[in-house]
Amino acid sequence: MTGVIITGVPRPPEGDVKKLRGYGVATVHEAMGRTGSLGPDLRPIQQDVTVAGPAVTALCWPGDNLMIHAAIEQCQAGDILVVAAAAPSTHGMFGDLFATALKRRGVVGLVIDAAVRDTATLREMDFAAWSRHVSAQGTVKATAGSVNIPVVVAGQIIKPGDVVVADDDGVVCVPRLRTAEVVTAAQARVEKEEASRAAFEQGQLGLDRYGLRPLLAELGVTYQAWDEAHTAAEVVR
Amino acid sequence: MTGVIITGVPRPPEGDVKKLRGYGVATVHEAMGRTGSLGPDLRPIQQDVTVAGPAVTALCWPGDNLMIHAAIEQCQAGDILVVAAAAPSTHGMFGDLFATALKRRGVVGLVIDAAVRDTATLREMDFAAWSRHVSAQGTVKATAGSVNIPVVVAGQIIKPGDVVVADDDGVVCVPRLRTAEVVTAAQARVEKEEASRAAFEQGQLGLDRYGLRPLLAELGVTYQAWDEAHTAAEVVR
Amino acid sequence: MTGVIITGVPRPPEGDVKKLRGYGVATVHEAMGRTGSLGPDLRPIQQDVTVAGPAVTALCWPGDNLMIHAAIEQCQAGDILVVAAAAPSTHGMFGDLFATALKRRGVVGLVIDAAVRDTATLREMDFAAWSRHVSAQGTVKATAGSVNIPVVVAGQIIKPGDVVVADDDGVVCVPRLRTAEVVTAAQARVEKEEASRAAFEQGQLGLDRYGLRPLLAELGVTYQAWDEAHTAAEVVR
Amino acid sequence: MTGVIITGVPRPPEGDVKKLRGYGVATVHEAMGRTGSLGPDLRPIQQDVTVAGPAVTALCWPGDNLMIHAAIEQCQAGDILVVAAAAPSTHGMFGDLFATALKRRGVVGLVIDAAVRDTATLREMDFAAWSRHVSAQGTVKATAGSVNIPVVVAGQIIKPGDVVVADDDGVVCVPRLRTAEVVTAAQARVEKEEASRAAFEQGQLGLDRYGLRPLLAELGVTYQAWDEAHTAAEVVR
Amino acid sequence: MTGVIITGVPRPPEGDVKKLRGYGVATVHEAMGRTGSLGPDLRPIQQDVTVAGPAVTALCWPGDNLMIHAAIEQCQAGDILVVAAAAPSTHGMFGDLFATALKRRGVVGLVIDAAVRDTATLREMDFAAWSRHVSAQGTVKATAGSVNIPVVVAGQIIKPGDVVVADDDGVVCVPRLRTAEVVTAAQARVEKEEASRAAFEQGQLGLDRYGLRPLLAELGVTYQAWDEAHTAAEVVR
Amino acid sequence: MTGVIITGVPRPPEGDVKKLRGYGVATVHEAMGRTGSLGPDLRPIQQDVTVAGPAVTALCWPGDNLMIHAAIEQCQAGDILVVAAAAPSTHGMFGDLFATALKRRGVVGLVIDAAVRDTATLREMDFAAWSRHVSAQGTVKATAGSVNIPVVVAGQIIKPGDVVVADDDGVVCVPRLRTAEVVTAAQARVEKEEASRAAFEQGQLGLDRYGLRPLLAELGVTYQAWDEAHTAAEVVR
Repeated sequence: MTGVIITGVPRPPEGDVKKLRGYGVATVHEAMGRTGSLGPDLRPIQQDVTVAGPAVTALCWPGDNLMIHAAIEQCQAGDILVVAAAAPSTHGMFGDLFATALKRRGVVGLVIDAAVRDTATLREMDFAAWSRHVSAQGTVKATAGSVNIPVVVAGQIIKPGDVVVADDDGVVCVPRLRTAEVVTAAQARVEKEEASRAAFEQGQLGLDRYGLRPLLAELGVTYQAWDEAHTAAEVVR
Repeated sequence: MTGVIITGVPRPPEGDVKKLRGYGVATVHEAMGRTGSLGPDLRPIQQDVTVAGPAVTALCWPGDNLMIHAAIEQCQAGDILVVAAAAPSTHGMFGDLFATALKRRGVVGLVIDAAVRDTATLREMDFAAWSRHVSAQGTVKATAGSVNIPVVVAGQIIKPGDVVVADDDGVVCVPRLRTAEVVTAAQARVEKEEASRAAFEQGQLGLDRYGLRPLLAELGVTYQAWDEAHTAAEVVR
Repeated sequence: MTGVIITGVPRPPEGDVKKLRGYGVATVHEAMGRTGSLGPDLRPIQQDVTVAGPAVTALCWPGDNLMIHAAIEQCQAGDILVVAAAAPSTHGMFGDLFATALKRRGVVGLVIDAAVRDTATLREMDFAAWSRHVSAQGTVKATAGSVNIPVVVAGQIIKPGDVVVADDDGVVCVPRLRTAEVVTAAQARVEKEEASRAAFEQGQLGLDRYGLRPLLAELGVTYQAWDEAHTAAEVVR
Repeated sequence: MTGVIITGVPRPPEGDVKKLRGYGVATVHEAMGRTGSLGPDLRPIQQDVTVAGPAVTALCWPGDNLMIHAAIEQCQAGDILVVAAAAPSTHGMFGDLFATALKRRGVVGLVIDAAVRDTATLREMDFAAWSRHVSAQGTVKATAGSVNIPVVVAGQIIKPGDVVVADDDGVVCVPRLRTAEVVTAAQARVEKEEASRAAFEQGQLGLDRYGLRPLLAELGVTYQAWDEAHTAAEVVR
Repeated sequence: MTGVIITGVPRPPEGDVKKLRGYGVATVHEAMGRTGSLGPDLRPIQQDVTVAGPAVTALCWPGDNLMIHAAIEQCQAGDILVVAAAAPSTHGMFGDLFATALKRRGVVGLVIDAAVRDTATLREMDFAAWSRHVSAQGTVKATAGSVNIPVVVAGQIIKPGDVVVADDDGVVCVPRLRTAEVVTAAQARVEKEEASRAAFEQGQLGLDRYGLRPLLAELGVTYQAWDEAHTAAEVVR
Repeated sequence: MTGVIITGVPRPPEGDVKKLRGYGVATVHEAMGRTGSLGPDLRPIQQDVTVAGPAVTALCWPGDNLMIHAAIEQCQAGDILVVAAAAPSTHGMFGDLFATALKRRGVVGLVIDAAVRDTATLREMDFAAWSRHVSAQGTVKATAGSVNIPVVVAGQIIKPGDVVVADDDGVVCVPRLRTAEVVTAAQARVEKEEASRAAFEQGQLGLDRYGLRPLLAELGVTYQAWDEAHTAAEVVR
């Protein structure tokens, strides 16, 4: 594997990024028609932090952080560094020195499909990170990779310039050319959810609010009283 | 798979539930003869919270939260909602809207064999949850399931009306008709443990307190000094 | 499997242990030529705590904590108890009673290749623990094992008297006879890292500081502008 | 944990067992409304073998096969021995000596939520086994458990006397009192599948045979030609 | 999630596909600069079979095979059906009826990021399949998905029309527009490997053939005799 | 990490190796007091093959097979090559070219804590291999490691010259200086097992042969008839 470093990646409008950050991961994911989620395996090392920013991507060889050095040069203020590995890796490829360099450039966070280390220091520095593992295991700088090519992280394609949003629920990726559309859909969803929240606080049931009783009937779901069920031979399962 | 919704599930005595909550998960599990634990895979999204309550159970299709809507209607104040999946699922089937509806009904917590989302909001709301995963990945409402049938969560059978106790050590399930017996056994264990704790604080060894030295000898375990062991060819293993 | 309990294990110099604790896990691991890390699977139950101490090792049968009782008697002030299992185990083999006995003896922490329980109490007691799992599942005392023999935990050999260092990044093991050498190397690394940190704060790039640009070229990594790459048929991957 | 050994477990009609074996795991699972499957984690050690029989259940402590000895005495010709572990276990709890004893009694197979060993010999002996692991790791006989109580294996409740069916697709469990009903449903399913198979061999599509085209339309799924999709800004995802 | 079905996907030249099949997975992966491998998690249900063909892709909801029905209509002779799931799934989404329909159309194999069932029958039918799981667990037809959009399977992007090659070593994906280039590189690699094989059969060492001795020296790797190493305090590690 | 290559490793007596091969993995593991097993995660790529031989060990960086080249030069007829990785790796680090070189030297098998590839060819060549994964993913040659130092594979310490025995049940490691002792214990075990097998064929029960009935009673295990148990409120669990 050799590699390429793509320079001059276009970023999406800052206003869209800011709004996506405000909506958070779950809402953005729903607004994209339930796509874009990186699932449960990349977890934050801190609590109660939300970030959003255009992705600068790096594809590294397992146990090798050479391309992170190359990627840093491509990072601008507001970006999120996204590190993928060419095969599964538990190496602590990223620590406080990298975080120092990224903070200097105004980078707002890290998403890495491997491990981070120096996690106590990263939290002290307010440098937000999402990773598959936490581990002290160190790396070498010996093998080629790429910067700013499309990568796959946790089953999701992330292209350079795509907006990555990350919070306590994980990470979601919004394609660069769809940010405006997703902002609109997210805003609509927020409004709908606020109305539902108010209704549920009043005691309305989802069964009624979303009209689900007929669906249950259509699917053959029946109601049975406990006493009746337990004089029967066995509870249906 | 079609399904059934069982209504009118009997609950165990409130006094027993309150006492089981006071003992916590590890003590209750021991008091049941070391049974009932859901093991290490269902983890709390918050720290230092203990809940206990009768289970309302829902069996859902993976990626589908229709039956959670049906289950909410069956929940009463003090209950815990227990959600099982018909096959392993990483979907964030439960979020802050459901939590709003459940809080309104006085439900004290959630145990789910899938993911939760909106975890930052759930913590703010003081709605306690134990789950296999945390993930923003959303769901549909399309496939039948059941409410208040016996389910299996993390290798443990949970029947509607059983008492679920959950804290930082995980989750334990007490069959509805055994709560009184378990309360008695838990109380006995607590008293025994308090005496042991006092003894250990004074420096007594478990080897002596529990009379384990003869057992070690009977099992053939021998003592050997470091110097002696290391003039021998190799440490026995 | 029967077993042996080795007594009179020599400890490394206290001064070295104290210094290793000061460096933390990632630095010590690097100072050992990137060896000794237990990887990502043993995690702390608390945040922002670092401990270091000579290992007292116990090898237990899964679901059986008999040998922990035997190991406690071999523990001295400043030690760390290291518990290995003869096969993978999710049992909560260690709880607050054991922690009480260990605190009385001045033991500074626990590393266990199984589960801990009573985790809320352990945190209250300021007893630090690293484990593969958290689970309430209890144990028996029926099967032989050994104390103070070399054990394997998370792929790493730990011999009695080796120095275990543990923090938020996991656990590292330093062989007893190498502590002085590792202290020296760690000190050198710290100084080098401080200089790098200062440089990165000033905006220097790792590419330049570590002279990596020629390596990238030698490996065939090329730079390409976004516009150029995207008029080509496809981004190279 | 102490235990109980239940004797005199009733078995279901032999004719039903024989028919269930003929249908195989996938068909029986479907005939039960898509319930009863033990999922992907228990795998056969042999290929192209199907067995069915009433379950004799054993609940063992991890790393301890004492209760398998007790269970064997409860086994009759035609039975399947089902071994559950009180916590996850990788021990090779079952080998060729047990298989010899079971063959003598006419037992037709083993389902175990742990490991088997002597697998080459078991295949030579034509003793069929499904297990979570294969491993030589041996066990002790020191801790109590139970025989012929309901157990959970791979997320599925198996009660003594239930019919276990196992083949290359895994294992399914049919409750003892439902065998007749399941035989009837399985037969209906087989006939339906045969008709579908014939139709598919003739070139009919499932879309047409099952009337799925309107469903796709209702769900908003649209058709788009490749050329049209690729002049658009981006393929919808 | 709604979806789209893309029709009229262009296929790569048949000659290239045939040659790629001849090279096998490992060689094709190396010829692509060590990219394109789906790694170890998708395994064949049969032994000693190699297939290659253009991908028809389906993205399904977990536990739902509706879109496989839609995908079959898009399959042509020589194709391979690639099924991705919108979240991890253990469902046996594919069985012998689907295989019957695909064989009728001349489809040469299946790659699925979920489970297959009826595996004994599939082997009898000579229908080749690679899957993450084997399980009898059945599915519904209720939720939308897409056909012939780019999907991610086991960390790898597969676009419709890409060539999928699969054998005992797993699966590799070759982008549609790169097949000619990869055939050329694979042929070169085969020739190089044949020369190496002949040399190794004669007793040459890789150290010499690939000129690795200077690299070892440059990396600081030293040779030490056993006796010398073992009079030293400890073997370096 | 730099490294060392140890030359001139002493081998154990050939006669012992041959006998250990005859006993097989499970018997050897039992004869060592139930130690030495590598557990369930390293699996053979072939069926019905047993090998035994002294270990030549290699410690490689993940995704890098440089040290395998160095290790081959240290291999003699009858040896088994054991490859450990400095961190978890799914790379197919070993294929048919390495196997060709090893066969030329008379090496009898491979044990690798990563992946193998070219598995169909290896089977054709009768080159036996045990690995954690099978994957085509290729490697580089860039980072130092060691040869013939003690390594940990699947939780087990393997030192150069130790005897590795591998069959369908997995892998076991016998320390070099204990081979004679283990041969004696294994022979005793085989004789004992043959007597037990004969007794079980005659219908004797393990409960009686091993005198387990008093142990069950002592542990509080009781017998209860089905009818009696089921007029009680609930089966004890």
